[in-house]
Amino acid sequence: VPLTPRGAGTGVEGGAIPLRRGLVLDSSRLDGITILPAERVAIVGAGVRKLDLKRAAARHGLCFGPDPSSNPSLGGMASTSASGMTTLRYGTTRENVVSMRVVTPQGDVIRTRTAVRKSSTGLELNQLYLGAEGTLGVIAELTLRLFPEPTARTGCLLPFASVADAAACVVALLQAALPTLLRCELLNTEAITATNAMFAQQLPPRPTLFLECAGAELRHTRRDAAAAVALARAHGAEIQGDTALQLTEGDALESLWETRRGCYPASLRAVGATAAPRKVLITDVCVPLAALPRVIAATEADFLASKLQCILCAHIADGNFHCLVPYAGALEAAAAHAAEERMIARAIEAGGTVSGEHGVGMGKIAHCLCEHGAAHLGVQAAIKHALDPRGLMNPGKVYHVAQQQQQAARARM
Amino acid sequence: VPLTPRGAGTGVEGGAIPLRRGLVLDSSRLDGITILPAERVAIVGAGVRKLDLKRAAARHGLCFGPDPSSNPSLGGMASTSASGMTTLRYGTTRENVVSMRVVTPQGDVIRTRTAVRKSSTGLELNQLYLGAEGTLGVIAELTLRLFPEPTARTGCLLPFASVADAAACVVALLQAALPTLLRCELLNTEAITATNAMFAQQLPPRPTLFLECAGAELRHTRRDAAAAVALARAHGAEIQGDTALQLTEGDALESLWETRRGCYPASLRAVGATAAPRKVLITDVCVPLAALPRVIAATEADFLASKLQCILCAHIADGNFHCLVPYAGALEAAAAHAAEERMIARAIEAGGTVSGEHGVGMGKIAHCLCEHGAAHLGVQAAIKHALDPRGLMNPGKVYHVAQQQQQAARARM
Repeated sequence: VPLTPRGAGTGVEGGAIPLRRGLVLDSSRLDGITILPAERVAIVGAGVRKLDLKRAAARHGLCFGPDPSSNPSLGGMASTSASGMTTLRYGTTRENVVSMRVVTPQGDVIRTRTAVRKSSTGLELNQLYLGAEGTLGVIAELTLRLFPEPTARTGCLLPFASVADAAACVVALLQAALPTLLRCELLNTEAITATNAMFAQQLPPRPTLFLECAGAELRHTRRDAAAAVALARAHGAEIQGDTALQLTEGDALESLWETRRGCYPASLRAVGATAAPRKVLITDVCVPLAALPRVIAATEADFLASKLQCILCAHIADGNFHCLVPYAGALEAAAAHAAEERMIARAIEAGGTVSGEHGVGMGKIAHCLCEHGAAHLGVQAAIKHALDPRGLMNPGKVYHVAQQQQQAARARM
Repeated sequence: VPLTPRGAGTGVEGGAIPLRRGLVLDSSRLDGITILPAERVAIVGAGVRKLDLKRAAARHGLCFGPDPSSNPSLGGMASTSASGMTTLRYGTTRENVVSMRVVTPQGDVIRTRTAVRKSSTGLELNQLYLGAEGTLGVIAELTLRLFPEPTARTGCLLPFASVADAAACVVALLQAALPTLLRCELLNTEAITATNAMFAQQLPPRPTLFLECAGAELRHTRRDAAAAVALARAHGAEIQGDTALQLTEGDALESLWETRRGCYPASLRAVGATAAPRKVLITDVCVPLAALPRVIAATEADFLASKLQCILCAHIADGNFHCLVPYAGALEAAAAHAAEERMIARAIEAGGTVSGEHGVGMGKIAHCLCEHGAAHLGVQAAIKHALDPRGLMNPGKVYHVAQQQQQAARARM
């Protein structure tokens, strides 16, 4: 019987959707949380959700680093190597899972890795199951790294004339290596316009960096945020004494991030050319930072030329951006998907990846073959066949195309 | 024809020794180094050695993080996930390889991972080949992360009455999160005595922490080193105005690390009870930091009770320690290996790993089975069989025992 593990169902590439009938394994009752403050780790069931872990860790002055905009399960985050806005400082889920308990398709329970700081004892099964999207086994329990929760936070908004100017400023910011820099996000003009409408606010409709410095002392976060503002001015940021653009703290900072997280709901409300019911195409790629301004500018222009909106929000310091494209009707759907294909081709051409943090699921299978090549996918499929020879774990996902090719080759032999 | 890849031959667990005849593939002519300063990466051939990369990166004000005491090849470091003294700040080799070019046993050349900051596109082959010790393919080229090279350095020596006192101080140091702390090493009394003899110096013969703070400004490294000294005094460090124990910089700091790196040659010179030619047993384990004082104390006492010297040097902030045990003759050899077995059992019992940074090679195959269990090793061996079905890559290594069990099971079917 095919088995498809499911976390909170927040994934956007369809990883948890069963394609070959069978059972869906709902992990929501694997909900135990144990915090070990001295070791700075949390041991959690796979069904525990991000916000529940956040609350439990906060009681010990600790936090889990990766922070997607939605509220996924930790098992789901591990399965897709999810990340979000704080990867700039803490890395992705991949870098924050010390060890896991995994149930293999044969029913063995293994601990993927010994929970020590370093180990050099053969194949790294922890990193293998991370990002495997439930195709190699079921994640039951995770041991996670925690960090001291920053108690001082200062943010700022930096509007620029162009995405290229904003990106150049980000390169300078990274070189300045401000010790407390935590988040560095970019919203394009259409994202600002859409969130202005949703939250009834009046941010200047320009490409805008959303920054946050976080640490143990306000004088440090204010110093670094002020340094960021100075750098931004030197890179042409259009800051003209507008109070909304000053350093923000407390509730004002919270509402800044509410705006950023609001991009997706705002895209659902975006008014299109027709009155038809609207859907939103969500996609993401990640490219080397040097290529980012060029790839973003070409992508925006392409969607515009296709008569589509492109609400773009980027984890820009990681080279990662999301496009949210509202569409209605078959013609706009076709145009949106065609422009997405060109965006993905552009990312591959720039040395990038076809999925920065959303996984492969159903949506990006064919693109993975373009990114990695047949030999790489062949190795992936050979591992899949070795560990799940009957193909029962989340069938039809991730490396399905390569699997089919290998099955055909085996049948010919 | 079996093929055993070989880097610089500095490994201590025998990973590069061919056990089934065949060819040894010497990587030393894969010696190209390209530094991309803007992206902060180096692209190197697998045969490039640590010190050559260090020199090339330094010309751009950059450095490669991991720093083993010997001068291994980068391909070898990747194959065993080597680390060293600076893992406290930079992580192991595993965390510093962005991507690799690997030649599979079938002769395909794959790029293990797209060289972007984050990617979520299926199985993590980069982390799979890292630490595989040449059993799954040949590493040809590596793309490595670089960091700005610290230009200001301040060190100190902190002698304690006992290893337990030193370990308690390290826990406090880690909690203080001094921003510039780079290295934190422990030498036991016998290591101090042996290096005193070798370098004709007079450090107090006590368990001693060797610390280094490194950053962009001396006022920061001096501030942090002074804070470390204050913390050490509060934890009973025996600092009595001895000039050798003050903050050290420049040449004095270099000679401090020469002493630390000298532990191995010093152990070769250590005078034993007999005049017979002496060898040195080298072994390492890594345990959770909380268990470290207990495991180190029990291990020292055990070697002593076995009438052996135990020159112990620890990457103590990682929970990782090495024992260098000089011995001569069959009786001492047997006693040394028996005490090593008990040390390894102690590490496993404490939730630790049987090899912190030396790999598995020939020396730790059986112990990996104890650490990970049969199901984990079974998954490893299944992957090995899937990717190298004829068993030609570095045969007899890493998971050889599990492979034999699976071969027997397949033969029975």
